[in-house]
Amino acid sequence: MINIAVLGYGTVGSGVVEVIRTNHTSINKKAGEYINIKYVLDLRDFPGDPVEEVLVHDFETIINDPEIQIVVEVMGGVEPAYTFTKRALEAGKSVCTSNKELVAKHGVELLAIAKERDINYLFEASCGGGIPIIRPLNSSLTADEIDEITGILNGTTNYILSQMAENGSDFDEVLKDAQDKGYAERNPEADVEGYDACRKIAILSSLAFGDHVDYEDIYTEGITKITATDIKYAKVMGTSIKLLATSKKVGDKFYAMVSPVMIDRKSPLYSVNDVFNAIFVHGNVLGDAMFYGSGAGKLPTASAVVADVVDCAKHLHRNIMMSWSSKKLDLMDVEEVKNRFFVRVRGSMTGDISKVEEVFGSVQPYGVADVADEFGFLTEEMTEKEFREKAARVEGVISRIRARV
Amino acid sequence: MINIAVLGYGTVGSGVVEVIRTNHTSINKKAGEYINIKYVLDLRDFPGDPVEEVLVHDFETIINDPEIQIVVEVMGGVEPAYTFTKRALEAGKSVCTSNKELVAKHGVELLAIAKERDINYLFEASCGGGIPIIRPLNSSLTADEIDEITGILNGTTNYILSQMAENGSDFDEVLKDAQDKGYAERNPEADVEGYDACRKIAILSSLAFGDHVDYEDIYTEGITKITATDIKYAKVMGTSIKLLATSKKVGDKFYAMVSPVMIDRKSPLYSVNDVFNAIFVHGNVLGDAMFYGSGAGKLPTASAVVADVVDCAKHLHRNIMMSWSSKKLDLMDVEEVKNRFFVRVRGSMTGDISKVEEVFGSVQPYGVADVADEFGFLTEEMTEKEFREKAARVEGVISRIRARV
Repeated sequence: MINIAVLGYGTVGSGVVEVIRTNHTSINKKAGEYINIKYVLDLRDFPGDPVEEVLVHDFETIINDPEIQIVVEVMGGVEPAYTFTKRALEAGKSVCTSNKELVAKHGVELLAIAKERDINYLFEASCGGGIPIIRPLNSSLTADEIDEITGILNGTTNYILSQMAENGSDFDEVLKDAQDKGYAERNPEADVEGYDACRKIAILSSLAFGDHVDYEDIYTEGITKITATDIKYAKVMGTSIKLLATSKKVGDKFYAMVSPVMIDRKSPLYSVNDVFNAIFVHGNVLGDAMFYGSGAGKLPTASAVVADVVDCAKHLHRNIMMSWSSKKLDLMDVEEVKNRFFVRVRGSMTGDISKVEEVFGSVQPYGVADVADEFGFLTEEMTEKEFREKAARVEGVISRIRARV
Repeated sequence: MINIAVLGYGTVGSGVVEVIRTNHTSINKKAGEYINIKYVLDLRDFPGDPVEEVLVHDFETIINDPEIQIVVEVMGGVEPAYTFTKRALEAGKSVCTSNKELVAKHGVELLAIAKERDINYLFEASCGGGIPIIRPLNSSLTADEIDEITGILNGTTNYILSQMAENGSDFDEVLKDAQDKGYAERNPEADVEGYDACRKIAILSSLAFGDHVDYEDIYTEGITKITATDIKYAKVMGTSIKLLATSKKVGDKFYAMVSPVMIDRKSPLYSVNDVFNAIFVHGNVLGDAMFYGSGAGKLPTASAVVADVVDCAKHLHRNIMMSWSSKKLDLMDVEEVKNRFFVRVRGSMTGDISKVEEVFGSVQPYGVADVADEFGFLTEEMTEKEFREKAARVEGVISRIRARV
């Protein structure tokens, strides 16, 4: 029997308890041992919930119990999760987590402690919810040098953009609807401003490239400025607008960026809709691969956490997780990053395209039937700096969206 | 240093050598040891190829060399691959393979030998080429009870169907073009009749369900009867036709089937085109997941084989692969399996739909502008037996394709 403790009985924590109870026969078989939930830690009481039998309010009960071999940290946030995780690892207990903030901020230190003690710090659920991506990066794509990871890593924003595309509605309207349905939080900033996706791509990039990618270094732009009119242009162009979190090796440099991007049918990410997430990976010998699934939600996320528990149980005294160095990966200045840009300009296509072409050279113009007094165009690939300078020289620019078409 | 031997210097074998040489720095780092190709076995000579230095013609050289710890079997076919693999495992050498015929036929026995000796028999490349799917089933989806696997598991047939859809051409024409381009073999039977996909779904189902799925028990239908006219109907219906290999739990029964199926935009497999493969998996807590990538090709396949070599190197004396029991999984009689069916019938839609509805009840009729003297209709879900009996009572049935819409 292996005794575990679950820190936090919120959405994910209660999911972990439910998954372990629902699939106990197959889970115990795969783990090779009976997985017993000895404690659940939460400040709250849950009268009438069967969790009451194992509920504790004090972390000291868990840390001081030598029978606890695996700790599941699903509290979220940096503190007290960081202190609890560090103490658990230092006490020789493996830790599994869904906590992306903590992994992005202190992952390198916590992985090192786990390695030193030959135990494990696993975080499959921190990126892409239930989608297996951390473990494939750790143990499947080992023959490859990975040169790109691009993901739809946030379910809330993907749901909002999908709904905007389906119904022609504006951002605020769909956000409100998503909040009513529980797909978006009352305070949606971390999702809609791209901060959540930013932390996730920082974790994935650190793993793939081997050096620490600091999430604070990543250029991050959310979806709050995307309008129903942008979506109309996207449709005319045969594209969809997705919040993409990307990191890429270009020559011997790296860049990372989170922003809305127009992509077309050629991308396998094109038809990833609603709350689904997907992570595209390019390896130098594998070529293109993509991992798709539920990026959030109680049970899918818990499924990933429990798979980590099984892995910890199978490797109680053996470190299996690759780590990354504490050396900061030097990211390219965002100004040097190249993209194509879709730009909307005030004016008439026939009358004003020439003033655009004077600055940008030959461009591909687009008009939308029921949108008057403006037109759009698609530039060739250029650096952010070059684009910014050119756009400043064109009168009446309304907005721009990066494009990979 | 870990010495390995590669059996077979064909497409995959030469890919394995190339991948190990190209990415040697990162591969050795991940393996924790220097991976040295000590021998390559092939009956042929390769004058001028650097492989000459390590080329041997006699398997005895390899089996009798105690320095060889890992054998890579990429010969294909059942013999002599089976004898060589069994002898290698019995001599305590781990084996990695891309050989789906061998794994489907003797996997259960070879896995048992590896388990007994605490070494490994790994076969990531046997299903879905470079796509990580065996390892995720083995170590990522461990919290779940998997109730469905549906894959586009053959690149040749997916290329042919994609080209037919893109160009409106007929099967024979596209097959010839695919053969000229090297995407289809001169003897294409194993691909176009579905036998290759059948072996792959047998392996995946055995792993997912834990009992042995005999590929000879799986109902298998290829794509040779799909015509340009079928594709025209598919387009009108907003569907695409894919060769799907499926296994599914229905209540407490299982079925497995390989056949062309019409799927619509709601399926994540809908936009998997050309030589790409994808495997959709449904878990009882995870929900939907999909793994996408290059299902064939020299380097992607070699990438998966070399990832297995790295895993064997990291676990030289520790069995890490789940196995399945030698007990045969009792599959449902195909006659009991339920599907919807798209049917083409001679006649005119207005004049003859009533004779169809007399037999099938209410159906959804479809017509194609430039296809005269016939129409199509989509049935409700029914068993194969029920469909066969009903279709026999309708005059002028031309063809039928299963549909998941």
